[in-house]
Amino acid sequence: MAKKKAAVIGAGSWGTALAQVLADNGHSVQLWGRRSEQSEEINQTHINSRYLPDVVLNSTIKAYSDLSATDADNDYIICAVPTKAIRETIKQLRPLLHEHSILVHASKGIEPGTFKRISEMMEEELEGASYKAVAVLSGPSHAEEVGIKQPTTVTVSSKHLEAAAAVQDLFMNNYFRVYTNEDMIGVEIGGALKNIIALGIGMTDGLGYGDNTKAALMTRGLAEITRLGVALGANPMTFIGLSGLGDLIVTCTSEHSRNWRAGHLLGKGKKLDDVLDEMGMVVEGVRTTKAVFALAQAENVEMPITSALYSVLFEEEPPLQAADRLMGRMKKNEEESSFMGRNEGGRES
Amino acid sequence: MAKKKAAVIGAGSWGTALAQVLADNGHSVQLWGRRSEQSEEINQTHINSRYLPDVVLNSTIKAYSDLSATDADNDYIICAVPTKAIRETIKQLRPLLHEHSILVHASKGIEPGTFKRISEMMEEELEGASYKAVAVLSGPSHAEEVGIKQPTTVTVSSKHLEAAAAVQDLFMNNYFRVYTNEDMIGVEIGGALKNIIALGIGMTDGLGYGDNTKAALMTRGLAEITRLGVALGANPMTFIGLSGLGDLIVTCTSEHSRNWRAGHLLGKGKKLDDVLDEMGMVVEGVRTTKAVFALAQAENVEMPITSALYSVLFEEEPPLQAADRLMGRMKKNEEESSFMGRNEGGRES
Repeated sequence: MAKKKAAVIGAGSWGTALAQVLADNGHSVQLWGRRSEQSEEINQTHINSRYLPDVVLNSTIKAYSDLSATDADNDYIICAVPTKAIRETIKQLRPLLHEHSILVHASKGIEPGTFKRISEMMEEELEGASYKAVAVLSGPSHAEEVGIKQPTTVTVSSKHLEAAAAVQDLFMNNYFRVYTNEDMIGVEIGGALKNIIALGIGMTDGLGYGDNTKAALMTRGLAEITRLGVALGANPMTFIGLSGLGDLIVTCTSEHSRNWRAGHLLGKGKKLDDVLDEMGMVVEGVRTTKAVFALAQAENVEMPITSALYSVLFEEEPPLQAADRLMGRMKKNEEESSFMGRNEGGRES
Repeated sequence: MAKKKAAVIGAGSWGTALAQVLADNGHSVQLWGRRSEQSEEINQTHINSRYLPDVVLNSTIKAYSDLSATDADNDYIICAVPTKAIRETIKQLRPLLHEHSILVHASKGIEPGTFKRISEMMEEELEGASYKAVAVLSGPSHAEEVGIKQPTTVTVSSKHLEAAAAVQDLFMNNYFRVYTNEDMIGVEIGGALKNIIALGIGMTDGLGYGDNTKAALMTRGLAEITRLGVALGANPMTFIGLSGLGDLIVTCTSEHSRNWRAGHLLGKGKKLDDVLDEMGMVVEGVRTTKAVFALAQAENVEMPITSALYSVLFEEEPPLQAADRLMGRMKKNEEESSFMGRNEGGRES
């Protein structure tokens, strides 16, 4: 495809890996990170030593740390910042947009209090601004593996179908395969909520449960994510695609996952504050659990894994007790506790 | 529940673990194995050293090696033999059945040539015999973990709903949770076909692909299993339950899985015959791949992972070439290559 101009906002591991994919594809790439030492390191050594240390970055990537220096003639803005930084980031970028700007986010969360998805937060901040579309990029994709060109597949979704196809073309190459999906709600909900399940699986792994338990919880986890998504208007089929099941698998079964690792430390008996200190990175699943626990109550959707995790994270329930309660409470008929609809008071075993 | 009498046919790791669950529940259990030395070992030392060495078996389990010595007053017959031994086993058991006999199989395969599911093979062999029902027990359940009472969940299904509920009650306890599902076709197809995907995932793991690739292939694998299942009359929802997704996860992500291990050796460059020699156990996925490759053609269902694996197993295609072809060929729109229906000639990327 023709060479495009793109800014990647956020030089964590995922933003850096995405910048690398775009540079590999011959596009002109700006990469913004908050810390000027990091930008200097990337420009001088082509290494992001804190977040993606094993990858030599393409020397065409231009790192910078002043967000207002983002080129106004970028065709694409890729936001890879934590959920809680989304609104402030968009506010600052807003004056630099134009009628052809496509904003792609690659973050995974739900806003506490408002229960907004990330694209909804972005659209609110962009109201009245000149831009073309907001899109989301999501899927099973550890940054560390994308950085070394391991074959990876992701989904891009937008209400603006032409924009989704343009983002697909922008990123697609022989190791980074991009698929379109029209269900933006499902793609965003799946990406955000799998972090809850990953925390839970990490916790039961930390407690010493085996693979049988893990597989059961992942299966039940996908079911509860799907139930909430369907209540919010998503297509249930999205949850068995790359951005749902695919991302759930990669996040729950790999020690690359920071949500799994945080859960694992909790299962080993550490306190939440100590876990977050030890991680030194944002663990989106913790805030997402809080938001989704409230959202599920508001929507009257049964989410037993989310509830159990909420008790451990915010009500000091011992992990072992929460896990035992969870395994014991499931219903007798598989279909009753399955994917569709809200509480129906099914038979408890 | 009241004490029942059950015979478990097959003293491999899974049959032995199931016998232990039943004995834990206070039932009277016969455990048949082909080799008399094994039966003697179990009766004398309460250990099955070859197949479940780390578990001390309940001393009430009575092992035997003469199938005709199966008590005719057993209420339940649990068949845990390889797929290719099903017909012969049922032929021999047939004279020992009575009008209340419930036969439960715990095997995973498809009969080559006829494409019959295991319950269909059993019903053919039982035609005209006196018995109550055939059921299937399936789900994410490594025998080694069940043996040490790790929390495990499985599904039981039968066309005879009362029999399914009876089997549920027979096995249910605090570490072995049993759910009913009315979709016997889906439960059997999911259990059989996940072995194909596990072989494929093992192969790509052996080739050195990462977690991103693995998650993508598992997601696509579940989609192709579901497509075939739906074509054969299954409920698509079954495939995202314990006997579908749950079993797929446990089989693809654990080194306990013999199908994964066989695939892993293939990916490392070993030849199929050497792999099978080295395993020393039945690898159901190899025969299942052959059967399902033909079945998919007969049903005109697109199954790219099964096809790629067939090429490696039976047409000497190098694993790396097959894997690369598989990753490169997926379609551009996620929904096009998704769960429903048959070949539709979607857009190739």
